[in-house]
Amino acid sequence: MVPLGGIPELAEGDDLARELHEAALRAGGLADGDIVVVAQKAVSKVEGRVVRLAEVEPSERARELAGPDGDPRHLEVILRESAEVVRSRPPLVISQTRHGFVCASAGVDASNAPEEGSLVLLPLDPDASARRLRARLTELGGVEVGVIISDSFGRAWRQGTTDVALGVAGLAPLRDLRGTLDAAGHELRTTQIAVADEIAGAAELVLGKADHVPAARVRGVDARGDGRGVDLVMPRERDLFR
Amino acid sequence: MVPLGGIPELAEGDDLARELHEAALRAGGLADGDIVVVAQKAVSKVEGRVVRLAEVEPSERARELAGPDGDPRHLEVILRESAEVVRSRPPLVISQTRHGFVCASAGVDASNAPEEGSLVLLPLDPDASARRLRARLTELGGVEVGVIISDSFGRAWRQGTTDVALGVAGLAPLRDLRGTLDAAGHELRTTQIAVADEIAGAAELVLGKADHVPAARVRGVDARGDGRGVDLVMPRERDLFR
Repeated sequence: MVPLGGIPELAEGDDLARELHEAALRAGGLADGDIVVVAQKAVSKVEGRVVRLAEVEPSERARELAGPDGDPRHLEVILRESAEVVRSRPPLVISQTRHGFVCASAGVDASNAPEEGSLVLLPLDPDASARRLRARLTELGGVEVGVIISDSFGRAWRQGTTDVALGVAGLAPLRDLRGTLDAAGHELRTTQIAVADEIAGAAELVLGKADHVPAARVRGVDARGDGRGVDLVMPRERDLFR
Repeated sequence: MVPLGGIPELAEGDDLARELHEAALRAGGLADGDIVVVAQKAVSKVEGRVVRLAEVEPSERARELAGPDGDPRHLEVILRESAEVVRSRPPLVISQTRHGFVCASAGVDASNAPEEGSLVLLPLDPDASARRLRARLTELGGVEVGVIISDSFGRAWRQGTTDVALGVAGLAPLRDLRGTLDAAGHELRTTQIAVADEIAGAAELVLGKADHVPAARVRGVDARGDGRGVDLVMPRERDLFR
């Protein structure tokens, strides 16, 4: 696991894959089977998923959810990104995004925003973003890598955030243990391991939130296969907590 | 991140720290600042946290929670380990353990149990277990390492399990970002990162559920500090999901 650093501040239209490719070259290059984990915010910035607060007119609902301590314009942006509000305690909102992710503020974030008074939104389709980055990395380096677009999510019942996978390309986000046997020969009851989330969390340990390291290279993890980041969303009918 | 393998099947009273020490020697040894991640089941086995189903008399409540497909004795053991049932859909139970962890089956598990018809329970005090392992590893190797006792937990809203930290010794389970600045000089809103959970999840990527690799050595992560695994449990008054 090595950080991919030295990447300049990103803006809409920048060739993020080229920045990642060059950062990886500085770190010894990419090889087939490597996984590149990229912070969501870097992807959102080059995709122009940024909203200026000054241009937002808050609704009545946004004012309610903001409470006395929140910015109604910020809450308005969160509502626009949400398919459903799951819990709220002004000004905190946990919602389900249009992709299906359940997270704080629908993933809308003011930290590391490109300018004061702006908010960064999640990519419209993180899996598509991951596929595009992967295709471009192959084009630039001639290697077959996996790509994970990660973000920091809080969890129910546990303190602190861990990074999870929003978008995935070129790897299997879930490892299926159904039918495999444990060391004593019993069938394992745990059915699936969210390896993409574990890889995203591992990468967070080397990502710098504050010093231009928006990505990491992970080597030696066998996550061969295929799948999408949205496969990590629990289907509503199986979800005991929605 | 390297697996610590070749550890034989464990039984009550075994010197797990010695097994870890010897496995680490085979993998190049331990150094100051390394973190040893040990699967909960290995710890529970040496601590004798095993129940034989044949000796369990199920209560009426256990029969209800088992439904037509579950084993009422298994549910009885889960109830005894639970402070509170959070959700149930027979025979599935999500409960809060006496330690405070919210997880499936109160952490009670039949896979990798030492014998057919037995269940493995969580350690009584995973933080105390981690501290004991750490002290013994220092004694055996003269090194100051961190210890994490990990288990696979499901998550609300997301598919698949990730490994998280139940017990912790010699490291800070949460990294506090409050007050630090992002690359643009704004104060970061994300307050805490659950690094111990990210380290546990990362270690899962090299742990073998099925081939006698109950531990991993993690090197190069700066988690200096102190704290307990139960610090990762969200205090009830701040928890929007209990």
